[in-house]
Amino acid sequence: MENISVKFLKEVEPKNAVLIEGLPGVGNVGKLAAEHMIDELDAEIFAEIYSIYFPPQVLVNDDGIAEMVCNKLYYKKNAGEDDIDLIFLTGDYQGMTPQGQYLLTARVLEIVKEFGVDMVYSLGGYGQGSMIDKPRVLGAATNHNLVEKGKEFGVVFDKEHPSSGIVGASGLLLGLGKRLYDIDGLCLMGETSGYFVDPTASRAVLEILLSLLNIEELSFDALDDKAEEVESITNKFMEMDPSSGVGQEGKSEHLRYIG
Amino acid sequence: MENISVKFLKEVEPKNAVLIEGLPGVGNVGKLAAEHMIDELDAEIFAEIYSIYFPPQVLVNDDGIAEMVCNKLYYKKNAGEDDIDLIFLTGDYQGMTPQGQYLLTARVLEIVKEFGVDMVYSLGGYGQGSMIDKPRVLGAATNHNLVEKGKEFGVVFDKEHPSSGIVGASGLLLGLGKRLYDIDGLCLMGETSGYFVDPTASRAVLEILLSLLNIEELSFDALDDKAEEVESITNKFMEMDPSSGVGQEGKSEHLRYIG
Amino acid sequence: MENISVKFLKEVEPKNAVLIEGLPGVGNVGKLAAEHMIDELDAEIFAEIYSIYFPPQVLVNDDGIAEMVCNKLYYKKNAGEDDIDLIFLTGDYQGMTPQGQYLLTARVLEIVKEFGVDMVYSLGGYGQGSMIDKPRVLGAATNHNLVEKGKEFGVVFDKEHPSSGIVGASGLLLGLGKRLYDIDGLCLMGETSGYFVDPTASRAVLEILLSLLNIEELSFDALDDKAEEVESITNKFMEMDPSSGVGQEGKSEHLRYIG
Amino acid sequence: MENISVKFLKEVEPKNAVLIEGLPGVGNVGKLAAEHMIDELDAEIFAEIYSIYFPPQVLVNDDGIAEMVCNKLYYKKNAGEDDIDLIFLTGDYQGMTPQGQYLLTARVLEIVKEFGVDMVYSLGGYGQGSMIDKPRVLGAATNHNLVEKGKEFGVVFDKEHPSSGIVGASGLLLGLGKRLYDIDGLCLMGETSGYFVDPTASRAVLEILLSLLNIEELSFDALDDKAEEVESITNKFMEMDPSSGVGQEGKSEHLRYIG
Repeated sequence: MENISVKFLKEVEPKNAVLIEGLPGVGNVGKLAAEHMIDELDAEIFAEIYSIYFPPQVLVNDDGIAEMVCNKLYYKKNAGEDDIDLIFLTGDYQGMTPQGQYLLTARVLEIVKEFGVDMVYSLGGYGQGSMIDKPRVLGAATNHNLVEKGKEFGVVFDKEHPSSGIVGASGLLLGLGKRLYDIDGLCLMGETSGYFVDPTASRAVLEILLSLLNIEELSFDALDDKAEEVESITNKFMEMDPSSGVGQEGKSEHLRYIG
Repeated sequence: MENISVKFLKEVEPKNAVLIEGLPGVGNVGKLAAEHMIDELDAEIFAEIYSIYFPPQVLVNDDGIAEMVCNKLYYKKNAGEDDIDLIFLTGDYQGMTPQGQYLLTARVLEIVKEFGVDMVYSLGGYGQGSMIDKPRVLGAATNHNLVEKGKEFGVVFDKEHPSSGIVGASGLLLGLGKRLYDIDGLCLMGETSGYFVDPTASRAVLEILLSLLNIEELSFDALDDKAEEVESITNKFMEMDPSSGVGQEGKSEHLRYIG
Repeated sequence: MENISVKFLKEVEPKNAVLIEGLPGVGNVGKLAAEHMIDELDAEIFAEIYSIYFPPQVLVNDDGIAEMVCNKLYYKKNAGEDDIDLIFLTGDYQGMTPQGQYLLTARVLEIVKEFGVDMVYSLGGYGQGSMIDKPRVLGAATNHNLVEKGKEFGVVFDKEHPSSGIVGASGLLLGLGKRLYDIDGLCLMGETSGYFVDPTASRAVLEILLSLLNIEELSFDALDDKAEEVESITNKFMEMDPSSGVGQEGKSEHLRYIG
Repeated sequence: MENISVKFLKEVEPKNAVLIEGLPGVGNVGKLAAEHMIDELDAEIFAEIYSIYFPPQVLVNDDGIAEMVCNKLYYKKNAGEDDIDLIFLTGDYQGMTPQGQYLLTARVLEIVKEFGVDMVYSLGGYGQGSMIDKPRVLGAATNHNLVEKGKEFGVVFDKEHPSSGIVGASGLLLGLGKRLYDIDGLCLMGETSGYFVDPTASRAVLEILLSLLNIEELSFDALDDKAEEVESITNKFMEMDPSSGVGQEGKSEHLRYIG
């Protein structure tokens, strides 16, 4: 096998397409958001990415079927009022090493560059370390026009955050995209505690993204149901042991299975 | 040297062959099982695999002879009632890094694909963290037919297990086999404490594997002797210090020399 | 992308040029010194280096603009009394792995070798673990003439220091330069506590470097301002908790944002 | 630069040559032994090996000269009664990663294979964890003839030792040599505490090696002086704090500077 194997499952011919990335990360905010859009828009998978930079692991589903961990590319034609094409990147894991992160991101950028993509939206969470009531969406972008446009739609470009930059695929898609592939990018990060999967932060990110893309028809019901489910489990833990806080490893581990 | 050097020791021409993998892992269940079959069926070694992904180490046997750590491929022609050919993969170590795991597994799949192999049985242990009286054999497979077939032969496809997937060669053979080499696979995992080498779990795995392969003639005497030996040592430790449980590092270390 | 991508932003034709390296390191002494020279001499950037050996990260500036972490090469024509050309290497990070350190350094040496460079000055800090009042500049060089010349300009070649060698880009530029690229080198290390960014050590290094290069016109005002700023913060911490010493992680972390 | 750069300094044409390896390791036994032979026989350096698998570091000598860390190959023509040619491998470090260990060892084997070498003696220490009065020399070899020959010269092939094999260059030279390069090998390991550099163990190894090679003329004076120096420092530590044993990190660190 090659270090990164891209398996195309069907031919697609995106036009005016943008890339939307939602890989696992803080609170799984980006992954939940991207998967929700994929589900609601009936986007179809067109490529799988297997790589030595992922964990050497299969996941086993409830039927006993083993599935190789991978990243996946989905495609949705003519979405929203502007009939734009969407390409989604999501998956089980990000690259496990810094070098893997670079090479996987560069490979995705090469693929979408071939499709004429010149804009990427990378979605993620911004861990605040404390419970968030009403998550803001923090942003970073590759140029000042995108920063201004983001502000118009409610994105917060806060001098304080993120002070140490953006690590991982969401950051690399912007940085490598801008410098090596001439692709612009806007990163949207929903505020989240960082302790649980956070569908509420995902919804906050999605609301802004959908406005930016002029897509109106999307229902948030599935995401809201998931948010309620997480909240109910969170509350149960709180009642069991209110003194211990919410940051304990055991709890967050458990909650990661949701979503 | 290449990163992975395959040294063929003799020419083989397998037909209708399946691959059986038993590399070191939890309780050494898979390795013991594969080695027992190799011994009992008089399978012959036909290839050695040396690799920079193994530890940089020789093992020294009782005669003072240093042997390079490696993986080995064995071949048995016309085994069992159905006269099927068997290829075995076993060895001293699995790859030491995630990337090595991927590349070594892919290399083995390439080799057996050349031989027309379209089915792999990967054998392993499933660590339960407590002593197991009568080990079940848990499974995962690459398609629903194999799951159904496994169930008929007593394999348990438990929704709870393995919750986090299968890590290492046993998982990758299924995942990469299915996705990149069009090879199906069934993973058989014998329940084991995880503290000791566990010939009893190996026997449980083997009984099901042999039924699946329609091989009847195999004696389990050598494996049972080994099981008794382990049990006697285990008991001795228990008597010496019954309060300390069986999970102590020192004990499991010692017991690893058996097998 | 390649493992190391060098993006040339403009054509330069250095003559009699020397390379001056100031990458992040102990007390950021080298980086501060190189950046100060770049600023004061109005050197212009001519190449950016992106690499899988850097952290997979973008830095976000106060405007919300994401910038890919990278190293940068600057050029200054006809500097100082001798009209020598200067090439500067600075950046956000050094390579994150030993292998990356080697390959990045070798790449820079290949680039400057093309430009006819046969001398490199690598700048850094030498952590003493205690507050330094008047920093000496310790040195190491690739040949005895350079050692002698360094001594004439006040560089200390102390048998005691650095006892364990010089790790990272500053060392590799000398070692690989000498052995593989026929480029000589002198490493200048300003004594520093190692706890804070240290513009005072940078000034000590620069004073000697500028004498060596026969460059007189440089102002140190910006560097001195920075030194005052650091001292004021350091003192504040001392007052807050004089018993705790200056080596606490929290403090040095905070101070790293300066500079 | 290449991942491994071999710089030949002069042409040599070894005949009937054997390779003698003494890289840093337990008690630096092998390195001291090889360097002592190189010194006493006036062997001359003919190649330097630079590699991304070594630490990214220069060593600075007492004159302030920076030297790139490397491995070195030396050559001695017509040594001993049998006029055999000797090639020595020594250096500052072994490869820092398992993969580097493999690739560096394989490269050396390729070089000496070109010279017709078909036998390697790898020298090392065998750490016993307690002070050794009269060190035995433990061995491992690639075939039974070498084991028998070793026994005749006093090498101990103990079933108990080394129970877990031989890790690093000394092991790989035997294992890879035998399997991939058709080169036989004998590993000689002097018993040592493992806490200090141990010239006494080096002498024990050398005495047997020289007998095996039929070389008589060598003086051990320099090695004995070093042994006395180490013993004097060891004793001083013992007096200072007899209760603390000799295994403390600080002590062994200090003593590593000897040798």
